[in-house]
Amino acid sequence: MKFFLSLLLLVSSAAWAQVLPSWNESEAKARIVAFVQAVSDKKSKDYVRPAERIAVFDNDGTLWAEQPLYFQFVFMLDQVKAAAPKHPEWKDDPVFQALAKQNHEALAKLGQRPVLELLGQANSGMTVGEYDGTIRGWLAKARHPKFKRPYTDLVYKPMQELLAYLRANGFKTFIVSGGSVEFMRPWAEKAYGIPPEQIVGSQQEVKFEMQDGKPVLRRGPNFVFVDDGPGKPVGIYRQIGRRPIAAFGNSDGDLQMLQVTADGPGQRLALIVHHDDAEREFAYDRASHIGKLDKAWDEAKARNWVVVSMKSDWKRIFSFDK
Amino acid sequence: MKFFLSLLLLVSSAAWAQVLPSWNESEAKARIVAFVQAVSDKKSKDYVRPAERIAVFDNDGTLWAEQPLYFQFVFMLDQVKAAAPKHPEWKDDPVFQALAKQNHEALAKLGQRPVLELLGQANSGMTVGEYDGTIRGWLAKARHPKFKRPYTDLVYKPMQELLAYLRANGFKTFIVSGGSVEFMRPWAEKAYGIPPEQIVGSQQEVKFEMQDGKPVLRRGPNFVFVDDGPGKPVGIYRQIGRRPIAAFGNSDGDLQMLQVTADGPGQRLALIVHHDDAEREFAYDRASHIGKLDKAWDEAKARNWVVVSMKSDWKRIFSFDK
Repeated sequence: MKFFLSLLLLVSSAAWAQVLPSWNESEAKARIVAFVQAVSDKKSKDYVRPAERIAVFDNDGTLWAEQPLYFQFVFMLDQVKAAAPKHPEWKDDPVFQALAKQNHEALAKLGQRPVLELLGQANSGMTVGEYDGTIRGWLAKARHPKFKRPYTDLVYKPMQELLAYLRANGFKTFIVSGGSVEFMRPWAEKAYGIPPEQIVGSQQEVKFEMQDGKPVLRRGPNFVFVDDGPGKPVGIYRQIGRRPIAAFGNSDGDLQMLQVTADGPGQRLALIVHHDDAEREFAYDRASHIGKLDKAWDEAKARNWVVVSMKSDWKRIFSFDK
Repeated sequence: MKFFLSLLLLVSSAAWAQVLPSWNESEAKARIVAFVQAVSDKKSKDYVRPAERIAVFDNDGTLWAEQPLYFQFVFMLDQVKAAAPKHPEWKDDPVFQALAKQNHEALAKLGQRPVLELLGQANSGMTVGEYDGTIRGWLAKARHPKFKRPYTDLVYKPMQELLAYLRANGFKTFIVSGGSVEFMRPWAEKAYGIPPEQIVGSQQEVKFEMQDGKPVLRRGPNFVFVDDGPGKPVGIYRQIGRRPIAAFGNSDGDLQMLQVTADGPGQRLALIVHHDDAEREFAYDRASHIGKLDKAWDEAKARNWVVVSMKSDWKRIFSFDK
């Protein structure tokens, strides 16, 4: 038995060179690996028991792409168009106008909340099963305008490796996203290894009712929780119930989640993905309407958080990159 | 390797006789074991992959005792008394009157919601850390009026065994309780092996704010979600995101959770704990104000759900029973 354990340790040591293969040997990678070793080594002063090794990941712009428009907003367009004949009152609604005209700038200025609220109206009345079917159908057919691929192909390979690496070291990984839980549940398990019960997101009202003697859950028109900005630590508190020791984001919407994570005792990892690769993906930060990185960037510099350059820290961005 | 696997299988077979040792060899136990075998045997037509083996447990009256008054309500008494001087408007409030006079019948008639709302006001303004400290302090000192023991001693040994047995067979176990998440998180991991992120419960509003340059979460006065009755399937949908295949309850507040679980395809386990042991615990059902079992009992009979008699199916109820 002892022999096998020693062998296992040797294999692990040899495997260090292999961890995070899509990451260049940069400071960012070194700091990630050093953090993981510090909290998972029982002899370390910063050791954290596995149950407390909670890692939270923003989704849009952190685990998959978000340009030229949050993918859930693209989905909404079809939903809202389909529902428009039933809602004559939308004709003069600025959110509907911005969506119908695909006016990204206007949409971005409006912010996530009013757009989510219009989506809420568009898909209310469905059972949760019907809504799930609608999302799966859209994801199967829709293609990204730049990459001409299914949206679910646009997950970041280096982040998939990071998720797996953390789990291999006893972490429990969660998504904490401004998007709706329903939009992530159908594919997050396959893409990220994250099951539905580890997804924290925005929530629309849902009601129990009996329909022809069968229990169903039906969607109402209102959002009951928007998991963005200061909402993210609240979502984490409600659903996870403990403070994460590692948080990963890319925009000002992740600032408070990163602050709460970094503020705990012991070693903490707060990391921001910086979109600076216009060729392989997109380049945007302070001036962007989608995924604006401004205050969180200043905070990252002031507090020495890890900032990942997609251009220089990642060997490849997507699985389909060479 | 193969030899070790075979040995393991032999051990497992021999261990069947040992499962659920605090349960008598009754129909209830046989049906539980048959269900678990059917969904976890790869050759079974009812096989369910581990990721979908979700089991949900009510807490009060199902995993621990709830008489003569929900333990969280007892905790509230102290909270509300301490806060009363700051709330002169409570003097004429029927909920406050019922709490202050420990009028269990009046409290039970009022139902869980208004009582939770008063608690909400009593503990609003605290940070979540301060509130957690208050609960832990109370749990350490408080003693049950009948058993003269800490409330956390009053967990049911047969249910602890059932939780462990399900997990040993690949299930993920969740609490789905009408009580507040904060009241269960401090002790559920030790008592039940259920971590905070697998507890679904009632939720009071919480807000992010910066206090002296540090991020804190502060409690507001209102409940934003009551996880009881028709709220339970909603809580499950929001936080777990898939339909459970096994559900365990004891009262009408669990009816809709049991209905949704039982209504799915394949084999399902819906189980009700019946409190019929006045000597070792308490005996109550249709006429009780706390943990009323009336409609759910009729439904259990009509649909052939498993009904556990605490008196005849359980060898012992608490760990401290002989």
